[in-house]
Amino acid sequence: MTVIISRAEHNQYFIGIDGGASKCRARLVSSDFSLRGEGLAGPANPLHGIEEAQEAIVASTAAALKDAGLPESDMKNLIAGVGLAGVNLPTCSAAMSNWDHPFKKMFLTTDLHVACIGAHQGADGAVIIVGTGSCGISCVKGKTHILGAHGFPHGDKASGAWLGLEGLKVTLLALDGVLEHSYLTDRIMQHLGCKTDLEVVEKMSRVSSRVYAKLAPLVFEAADHDDAQAQAILREAADYIKAISDKLLDSNPPRLSMIGGLTERMMRWLDKDVAARFSPPLDPPEVGAVYYAHEELFGYHEAV
Amino acid sequence: MTVIISRAEHNQYFIGIDGGASKCRARLVSSDFSLRGEGLAGPANPLHGIEEAQEAIVASTAAALKDAGLPESDMKNLIAGVGLAGVNLPTCSAAMSNWDHPFKKMFLTTDLHVACIGAHQGADGAVIIVGTGSCGISCVKGKTHILGAHGFPHGDKASGAWLGLEGLKVTLLALDGVLEHSYLTDRIMQHLGCKTDLEVVEKMSRVSSRVYAKLAPLVFEAADHDDAQAQAILREAADYIKAISDKLLDSNPPRLSMIGGLTERMMRWLDKDVAARFSPPLDPPEVGAVYYAHEELFGYHEAV
Repeated sequence: MTVIISRAEHNQYFIGIDGGASKCRARLVSSDFSLRGEGLAGPANPLHGIEEAQEAIVASTAAALKDAGLPESDMKNLIAGVGLAGVNLPTCSAAMSNWDHPFKKMFLTTDLHVACIGAHQGADGAVIIVGTGSCGISCVKGKTHILGAHGFPHGDKASGAWLGLEGLKVTLLALDGVLEHSYLTDRIMQHLGCKTDLEVVEKMSRVSSRVYAKLAPLVFEAADHDDAQAQAILREAADYIKAISDKLLDSNPPRLSMIGGLTERMMRWLDKDVAARFSPPLDPPEVGAVYYAHEELFGYHEAV
Repeated sequence: MTVIISRAEHNQYFIGIDGGASKCRARLVSSDFSLRGEGLAGPANPLHGIEEAQEAIVASTAAALKDAGLPESDMKNLIAGVGLAGVNLPTCSAAMSNWDHPFKKMFLTTDLHVACIGAHQGADGAVIIVGTGSCGISCVKGKTHILGAHGFPHGDKASGAWLGLEGLKVTLLALDGVLEHSYLTDRIMQHLGCKTDLEVVEKMSRVSSRVYAKLAPLVFEAADHDDAQAQAILREAADYIKAISDKLLDSNPPRLSMIGGLTERMMRWLDKDVAARFSPPLDPPEVGAVYYAHEELFGYHEAV
């Protein structure tokens, strides 16, 4: 097994940040990587607002310091590893890099990267993330390769937003009499509290991907009730996950994990040989962010 | 053939308005329905902004009056027929109905409704609209039935926005190596002026359906170059148009038309027997809006 050996000074604290479209998680650890405090704040995707993302990073860090019984003034002494959604885009990355941040040092990378580092405890590996969005990433021999992370509605296949969108499409076609009504369409109408297509259109007009993702559990539920449309949607999602896991395995990662809110439910839709490719993630992304900061400070981790 | 017999006073002018997500067209006609002036203004979908829609209606009317050589002060003497996107939704309809409008009288209905009335010169019929969005509508014996008009990305199947979205999905999957690159994906990348998936994601982040619709012509072009993915997308679109035309014909409309920017190109993808169902539209939607106002004022039109 591979572990990180800390070379930080005894009193050096790290803050690991995992910031995405819906929330920002912070974890404060001491030089031996033991947990001292946790914090949570709102959205931290700079693509949707640079200032909001920066405020969420500061707020979640402040909450983690408070949780650890430390004063907020200690923020300036922290070394921060920050994994953020959106910073694979050059404009976002540039805006965040120019931030006059409140830390002693800050190392910035994507939320996908810290998820991958965390899942394999700092060692090489690959990860497929299936939550509100979807993507794949492999980190092997210092090379990072990202698949997907293309955004909604053109990307994020097999994600919660995609599942919900596909379920809603079926529902609207059924309301028009183009498809048959089914368990899935009934449950979606019930969940939305709507009786007509006009009510659905009004409710779902110009909403974010998170609102579509709230329908995803109904697709799984309907599939369990032998709903043919829901099962077809999930088979298409499973085919896509097989395809991106094929691609990720091309780079020979020692381990492959799946993380995100839909992991458990999606695993049951994968063929057995595909599901068998996945190993459980070892640490959460915010710990991956600490590993990242540590590696950037002291060079590559040592294998034991 | 069916025509409208005007019962308006000799000096009574009508303004017909067709307002959608991208523009607002106005047509000024005299009591014998002859054209006196035309006007064009910006977006007039109250779902995307009530005030903007109202301003566009006034601006397009002012332009039509000017085109007719009439003073803007004549606006208060006009009888307006107004067909607007979004007013099938109760909140939009209510907001527009409460408008302190500048006309002598105003009769409000949907853009779909005036399109249908126009296409059949005031007589019964049905219409499928395939432009940036898509929908179907039949107006038979005083009953109006709307299919689709559900919005993007969950509805509007076979529309320009849908075609562009499907084309972009294929392109992003090809960039990830999950699908083969093809004529379609090369043309889309060339059109977007992008070399990598990151550039595409940055360009297409949170854009409107109109931006997706700009990719639709490339899907038709690629299909003409034997691109299998583009052809599959267009076959799915054609299947949907067949399905909604089946539904519309259930209400026995005397005529069925297709209108919207993709009409000509989409017709070529329909099976011959499906394409043969469609008759050319007789008048544009803004003239349909005048017929609508006239009918509302004087009762149902007379058949000659």
